[in-house]
Amino acid sequence: MDTWTLIEQPCRFNRRRGTDALFTLGNGYLGCRGFFEEEQEDVEALGGIYVAGVFGRGALKAWKGMHRELVNTPNFFWVSLRVNGEALLCRPKRMAGYRRVLDMRRGVLDRRFTWTGSDGARVRVRFERFLSVDDLHLAGQRIEIEALDRDVEIELLVGIDARVTQLNRVTTSPRPIQPGRRHLRTLRAGPDEIETVVDTLPKGVRLAEAQRAVLETPAGPLRGADAATTDLAARRFCFRLAAAKTARLTRLAAFYTSRDGADPMARARRTLRRAGDYEGLRAAHERRWAETWRACDIELEGPDDDQRALRFNLFQLLQACPEHDSRVSLGARGLSGEMHEGSVFWDNEIFKLPFFTFTRPAATASMLRFRHRTLPEARRHARDLWFDGAMYAWKSGDDGVEETEMGVGAYYAIHIVADIAYALRQYWEATADDEFLFRYGVEILIETARFWKSRSHYDPLRRTWNILAVRGPNEYDVIVNNNLFTNMMAGENLRYAEEAVALMRRRSPAAWKRLAARLGFRETEPAAWRALAEGLVLCYDRGRDLFVEDDMYLHRVPFDMKRGKPDARRVIDGTLPYEAMALYQITKQSDVVTLMNLLPWKFTPRQMRRAYAFYEPRTAHDSSLSYSPHAVMAARLGMRAEAYRYFRDCAYLDLADIQLNTISGLHFANLGGAWQAAVMGFAGLWQGDGRLHLGPHLPAAWKAMRFRLCYRGGTLRVELRGGKTRVLLESPGPAPLRLCVAGRDVRLSKAGQEVTTPA
Amino acid sequence: MDTWTLIEQPCRFNRRRGTDALFTLGNGYLGCRGFFEEEQEDVEALGGIYVAGVFGRGALKAWKGMHRELVNTPNFFWVSLRVNGEALLCRPKRMAGYRRVLDMRRGVLDRRFTWTGSDGARVRVRFERFLSVDDLHLAGQRIEIEALDRDVEIELLVGIDARVTQLNRVTTSPRPIQPGRRHLRTLRAGPDEIETVVDTLPKGVRLAEAQRAVLETPAGPLRGADAATTDLAARRFCFRLAAAKTARLTRLAAFYTSRDGADPMARARRTLRRAGDYEGLRAAHERRWAETWRACDIELEGPDDDQRALRFNLFQLLQACPEHDSRVSLGARGLSGEMHEGSVFWDNEIFKLPFFTFTRPAATASMLRFRHRTLPEARRHARDLWFDGAMYAWKSGDDGVEETEMGVGAYYAIHIVADIAYALRQYWEATADDEFLFRYGVEILIETARFWKSRSHYDPLRRTWNILAVRGPNEYDVIVNNNLFTNMMAGENLRYAEEAVALMRRRSPAAWKRLAARLGFRETEPAAWRALAEGLVLCYDRGRDLFVEDDMYLHRVPFDMKRGKPDARRVIDGTLPYEAMALYQITKQSDVVTLMNLLPWKFTPRQMRRAYAFYEPRTAHDSSLSYSPHAVMAARLGMRAEAYRYFRDCAYLDLADIQLNTISGLHFANLGGAWQAAVMGFAGLWQGDGRLHLGPHLPAAWKAMRFRLCYRGGTLRVELRGGKTRVLLESPGPAPLRLCVAGRDVRLSKAGQEVTTPA
Repeated sequence: MDTWTLIEQPCRFNRRRGTDALFTLGNGYLGCRGFFEEEQEDVEALGGIYVAGVFGRGALKAWKGMHRELVNTPNFFWVSLRVNGEALLCRPKRMAGYRRVLDMRRGVLDRRFTWTGSDGARVRVRFERFLSVDDLHLAGQRIEIEALDRDVEIELLVGIDARVTQLNRVTTSPRPIQPGRRHLRTLRAGPDEIETVVDTLPKGVRLAEAQRAVLETPAGPLRGADAATTDLAARRFCFRLAAAKTARLTRLAAFYTSRDGADPMARARRTLRRAGDYEGLRAAHERRWAETWRACDIELEGPDDDQRALRFNLFQLLQACPEHDSRVSLGARGLSGEMHEGSVFWDNEIFKLPFFTFTRPAATASMLRFRHRTLPEARRHARDLWFDGAMYAWKSGDDGVEETEMGVGAYYAIHIVADIAYALRQYWEATADDEFLFRYGVEILIETARFWKSRSHYDPLRRTWNILAVRGPNEYDVIVNNNLFTNMMAGENLRYAEEAVALMRRRSPAAWKRLAARLGFRETEPAAWRALAEGLVLCYDRGRDLFVEDDMYLHRVPFDMKRGKPDARRVIDGTLPYEAMALYQITKQSDVVTLMNLLPWKFTPRQMRRAYAFYEPRTAHDSSLSYSPHAVMAARLGMRAEAYRYFRDCAYLDLADIQLNTISGLHFANLGGAWQAAVMGFAGLWQGDGRLHLGPHLPAAWKAMRFRLCYRGGTLRVELRGGKTRVLLESPGPAPLRLCVAGRDVRLSKAGQEVTTPA
Repeated sequence: MDTWTLIEQPCRFNRRRGTDALFTLGNGYLGCRGFFEEEQEDVEALGGIYVAGVFGRGALKAWKGMHRELVNTPNFFWVSLRVNGEALLCRPKRMAGYRRVLDMRRGVLDRRFTWTGSDGARVRVRFERFLSVDDLHLAGQRIEIEALDRDVEIELLVGIDARVTQLNRVTTSPRPIQPGRRHLRTLRAGPDEIETVVDTLPKGVRLAEAQRAVLETPAGPLRGADAATTDLAARRFCFRLAAAKTARLTRLAAFYTSRDGADPMARARRTLRRAGDYEGLRAAHERRWAETWRACDIELEGPDDDQRALRFNLFQLLQACPEHDSRVSLGARGLSGEMHEGSVFWDNEIFKLPFFTFTRPAATASMLRFRHRTLPEARRHARDLWFDGAMYAWKSGDDGVEETEMGVGAYYAIHIVADIAYALRQYWEATADDEFLFRYGVEILIETARFWKSRSHYDPLRRTWNILAVRGPNEYDVIVNNNLFTNMMAGENLRYAEEAVALMRRRSPAAWKRLAARLGFRETEPAAWRALAEGLVLCYDRGRDLFVEDDMYLHRVPFDMKRGKPDARRVIDGTLPYEAMALYQITKQSDVVTLMNLLPWKFTPRQMRRAYAFYEPRTAHDSSLSYSPHAVMAARLGMRAEAYRYFRDCAYLDLADIQLNTISGLHFANLGGAWQAAVMGFAGLWQGDGRLHLGPHLPAAWKAMRFRLCYRGGTLRVELRGGKTRVLLESPGPAPLRLCVAGRDVRLSKAGQEVTTPA
């Protein structure tokens, strides 16, 4: 069994769009859902192609912003196909031998089927496409049509379809949000070339796309005729195809936006002119994928299903990361769908970044720079709400403005501020990238520490520092006070700020002086941060040695999970309104458990076990952010069967559509969660005390697991096999690497040096 | 100065609609805003006439219901007037001598002005109208047109305009809710008679309206010609009016709906036929008003402004009460505007009912019957949310379904359940109406007690009964636990249920048996209610002898009221989002203060003084439910100047548009609050221990105050003059009345018996 391919066979006629998100291709610049290229009568002009950073104005009423939404851009893979005058449409009676194959090793999507016309004529059709990861502005497509039994008349239109509208109406189930809103204004479409220039509304990003299509028939190459209409730049190829013969269309598409610089159409044309041929472009693309996989893959000796599912999660994560552009980050659904409007939330930092930090640190750096770029907006947001420093938006489009709808509680969900600081610290610990820290990080840490200082309140009655009116990761909280996750992460944030200031002052005094002056830094600040970090109340039940989600959790009403969640639907979609959640001891998604995964050095194993035993049965898993933290902690606590069960819920979440909304896009936090379950759970990875911890917690079903890690400029190769952990230093970093492998302290400094525990 | 009339002079051209709500006429069946009869080009076909109980489907997304909204029904006062071919429109350059007068004693609206055409011709116009309180299905209108200088050609159209749409777009400022939604489907309009039949959509209430219009000109009566168009039944009168002559149009309109029985048009025609003449109808109407005023007026010896303002509040309250129909209740804006969609909230029971209970107890009985009628829906609501008994909707249209928008917290605002029980108990105490109690009240009390039992939770850690996840009267709470108001009122509700069951068992055993069987009553229930009532935690700070709004209020962040509320706008409209309120010690509207007014026997004077001193500076008064409770408590505590200040804020709230949204309808709770400020504040009225308490707390500006009270079947006449209180029994009840006048216990049993304190 090939663990590198995702195969759909037969066609799911009734819910075809339901699996489009799984077959998404991307290169960080573009994401392209696995839609069928040939036009379909019921879903005309839909496509599903997104450009990182291209947002339009959405319909929801945002708290502050204009509610930006990711724009569905012109479909440059568009095709219309007629055989003997009959439209080739995807219908059960006409199709046979359907197969859609996502080749994850090569980053290529392939689809084939045999179609029988109403006159009995059969043609075999095959589509292949890719978005180049070698040149982010290029895509290739190949279409082969074979007449099986007899001669047929073919009419093939290929072009760029700018009639596309938003997909939300179609893809967001069960609650449609927007009725096919359209963002595009076509400036030019055809007729001489297949070229389209559109502007998005209202902000006016210009998208320019050009393509070259060549049709080879048995009788030789054919030049198409212009077939442009409004909003559609297309060419028409009409030809007779003899029985048993094949015609092949090859096209290359280039695309630029005004975000890439002036005159994007000139750039697209130039790129297209220099693009070379299809095979060459595809080969370069495949070489790049091979390099990426070398660094990022996790190899299993275990069930092929698990291997493929794991690769699927990593593949989709890699494809969508806009590493090339720090003006954008990675949305909750990546570039695979429109749910959450392409926005970025806290889970980017907590669920996705660890994978990149340890495999492609430049990607993490880019996404943290996005947070640095949006500091001005975060400062404005804090000021508007009477706070100091920087308050990051719960939901960001491209500009960092709070895009959460009115009344949805963005004011409360402030742990995102500390989550960003945490990811920054993790990046710095994993890379020792002082330059990045000093250039971008310290400013973020100072401004977020200032935020926490102003957002906390000293309670003279209880004599504690409180953070009131928050919502923790458990979104069924509604509002609570002193959420443990928030308070503890805020405390970390304050400490990171203090330590980073001290470090920069020491190592880069001149730059520090400039920064301190620019930020109006006061020498008394670090001590105040430390005092606050130490004074913040942490909810804890001494009798049970139990850390408590917030100061009311233990007083709330026990929740009947059987009654509340009889099926896969979320509690609030099925049995009770969201508002009711505040009454109950119910956790939508892991909260304390996630916290303990993030800061394992703060808790004893007994405390983790108690917390897991307490919260797990109270957790509804009504979010995709819940399975992987449970897998990680269960693995670390040695509950391997339970860890494996949660790993599978996580790894198959989209493949099996466990949350019932994969149609609207893949769950990107969960994709990162799959890596975390494997590497941070089964391989026990964590850092935080100057060492990189690893340890063997493989599930019974897996004989071995292998992967690479980037760590402080070096590359480690890790293999777990049964109870053994082997770590090899493939390439060293500038300094010796301190590891703690299965409890044993190790230093690795030379290439080829390795350690195995138990020895 | 006439204290019976509200006069607008001159015309407020720029914000004319802003005062329409003040000039509303009504008879409980219909409410008719004070709009100009003659069509205006900028606000064509708007009107503003509402029929109690006639709801359509609104645009907001309700939590459970279809979001009912009060329907703007056909405008039967519609007129179009042309002079020498020129439309008579309300414009500054054309108008002089404008005067709009609401005669509150007679219930008549009068408007007059002189209009000068572009050709210089002047006409004097006068409109008079009333909605009969003698026959609720009849209205009268008279229009006089006088040519001042020279002969003019008049074209007068009169009719019923069914083109009306909802006013929300126009009247709800600053946030428009709905874009002129239209609810009506015209079945018939003219041409033979001025008759209109419309159906509301989608529920299909049929409204039938018929009218008779007679024009008397100096040359004799004129019969108009048909001028019906779609949705408009009208007749046209064209005539030449000689200089110094007057023409007079008189029309009577009759209206019925399918809620009144079959064939409403036949009923309307019959009523119209038997209606008699305009003068007779108006005289009967005025006689009725005189009777009403005799029972309900409060007479002052003090500033005329205060007298008029007080009468305005009572007049509007009286006009809108649907005493004739227990299938509806009295909405938050009565029938004077469309804000809150005509819905009924808790303030009906707590702010409006006391006035009716002591002046028109049948009106209270009718509105409590509405709550009894909607018990089935309240039971369903409780069951849907996993509770027992009956959970009344926070926002009810006509059917008791929860109409609150999603996410607005109806789940939390459950004190309404106890508020209804409280109003019921107050009614019973004030009327001794056992029959009503046994027939309707006990069932409500049992079902609400059951609700509280299931909504409370025993906390084994704190060993208290908690009511978690609620919102008290202070709507800036967002969500709190153990709101004092909610817990204490729930405790009362539980006690009332226990006592009512015991009483009915004793006095009406057979009926009790039937009721107990029907409700599945268990003998163990009353003891459980009592135990819960005694166990519910009441937030209280012993050190300060301070009752506390909820269990976190004292721990929250002090609020800078100067920064948060620099102007008349609400905090959340001006400076911070609603979500932020949960962080602060801020009270939107009186909460503990209102509670102490309701249950004065539960608190010591010291506790009341402390509470007032603590909460008053923390109260934003961002609701119309805030001034009157402060007036009442300040008066009772002897802070007469402060009480008077709050009384004036209350009494002028609509007249001076203090809340900036009177355009969308009058604040009916506050209308009732004005009565409470005067009678429960300045005259110190309360009950609750079997006696009726009165006491003199007149403000310095008032020499004397006189009013009547209905009490246990008798009528009391109360006069306060300086420190003296005089109570006269005008007509006795079936049993002697126990009073406590200025601390002195008194019994009155015979007509004419009176008491004065100090003697």
